[in-house]
Amino acid sequence: MLIVTSAQNPTIKLIRSLDDKKHRQEHGLFVAEGEKVLDRARQEGWEPAYLLSTEHCEPWGKAALLRVDEKIMGQVSAQKNPPAQIGVFRPRWAEAVKPEGVWLALEDMRDPGNLGTIIRTADAAGASGVILAGQSCDPWAPDCVRATMGSIFGVKLVRMEQPEFLSFLRQWPGESVGTHLKATESYRRPYPTPSLLVMGSEGRGLSEEAAAACSTLVRIPMKGGAESLNVAIATGLMLFEAQKL
Amino acid sequence: MLIVTSAQNPTIKLIRSLDDKKHRQEHGLFVAEGEKVLDRARQEGWEPAYLLSTEHCEPWGKAALLRVDEKIMGQVSAQKNPPAQIGVFRPRWAEAVKPEGVWLALEDMRDPGNLGTIIRTADAAGASGVILAGQSCDPWAPDCVRATMGSIFGVKLVRMEQPEFLSFLRQWPGESVGTHLKATESYRRPYPTPSLLVMGSEGRGLSEEAAAACSTLVRIPMKGGAESLNVAIATGLMLFEAQKL
Repeated sequence: MLIVTSAQNPTIKLIRSLDDKKHRQEHGLFVAEGEKVLDRARQEGWEPAYLLSTEHCEPWGKAALLRVDEKIMGQVSAQKNPPAQIGVFRPRWAEAVKPEGVWLALEDMRDPGNLGTIIRTADAAGASGVILAGQSCDPWAPDCVRATMGSIFGVKLVRMEQPEFLSFLRQWPGESVGTHLKATESYRRPYPTPSLLVMGSEGRGLSEEAAAACSTLVRIPMKGGAESLNVAIATGLMLFEAQKL
Repeated sequence: MLIVTSAQNPTIKLIRSLDDKKHRQEHGLFVAEGEKVLDRARQEGWEPAYLLSTEHCEPWGKAALLRVDEKIMGQVSAQKNPPAQIGVFRPRWAEAVKPEGVWLALEDMRDPGNLGTIIRTADAAGASGVILAGQSCDPWAPDCVRATMGSIFGVKLVRMEQPEFLSFLRQWPGESVGTHLKATESYRRPYPTPSLLVMGSEGRGLSEEAAAACSTLVRIPMKGGAESLNVAIATGLMLFEAQKL
């Protein structure tokens, strides 16, 4: 275990740079904070490239272990109350979508906090995985990873460019159910498996092309004055309905 | 309409200071951004103390109208793309809880973004109002107001200190349904009106005292690896179930 006492240490500087998408992509690394979150990573068979800790810690695969003081941890951490451990991992994308259970597809998701909450909810609902279609924000961004509360390590993530996604959607063997403000059918309905739930982006909703490629469009009814739901709330309602939870 | 060309203008300085809770409380004012949001305020019978606009705008009650250029608007706005209009309003708290329909109570809500999303969802679900119990974050904070997407003007907000809330809960004439990870009954059940849904805080869940004072405790079942749901997601599921939406 290497003891690091300077914030000028190149590894510390590297890790701090991962706040920035450009550097995450350049190095192929992302940061996850906190022992509970790291426990989940361990359970799911992940192995960090680096493990920073303010306390003694056991080896974890081939991870480079760095012992730091609380001051350095405070500089690396994005949280007000820095954790005792931070792990730095290589992103993992699932290559294939096995059509079973309930899959979730998100079109042009822009907000990392919403995306993280959705990944956490997909995990809680036992979804088979999440497809990030089109111009998605980065799921490995600190705001997203934090909002997943560890679920980033437990949920299959697949990315697709928009044309690939549209052709995938057209070939999906089960039902593909898009949410749409103008749909007439309610989201409270049976969801045979495999089902693919398709959610549009925060501002614009589902694209016309994706809406046309879905086998069914449903709406979530509303009673009050709000024009629409937050996309994470709408996704939560869809997932728990489709999973009969 | 006053034309303001300097960011040193005392009203502009006052409005900028409202980012800070201390100044919001001192002046009894909060900020809401964007024309759609302000339209909702107008519909709901609110009247701003100040209305900032980069364009000519019609009088709105007794609001002081300030015409500003885009540079000043950019300095006042918390958004990357500053809106054409910003309104500054006096907070309104509802004094009484009329026991009808579905009310929502939030205990020790800490995150303004979650609170804003919950207020938006309560509005969409047609809830009668939201009770902020205990140590709540400030609903008039910019992050919360923004997340409500205008619903801050349409949803009754009531605040209660914890002892007052507990006695209110014990005297509630209908069912009071708390969500609890250890409950055995599912949240998918009938909700006679009036119903009061009681949600605990993000980290700790429902307090023992509040759990004991609820007439029923329910759980939201989970299938996957996540330990819990984000509080806004859990609240969304409860509201749409209770409102049969």
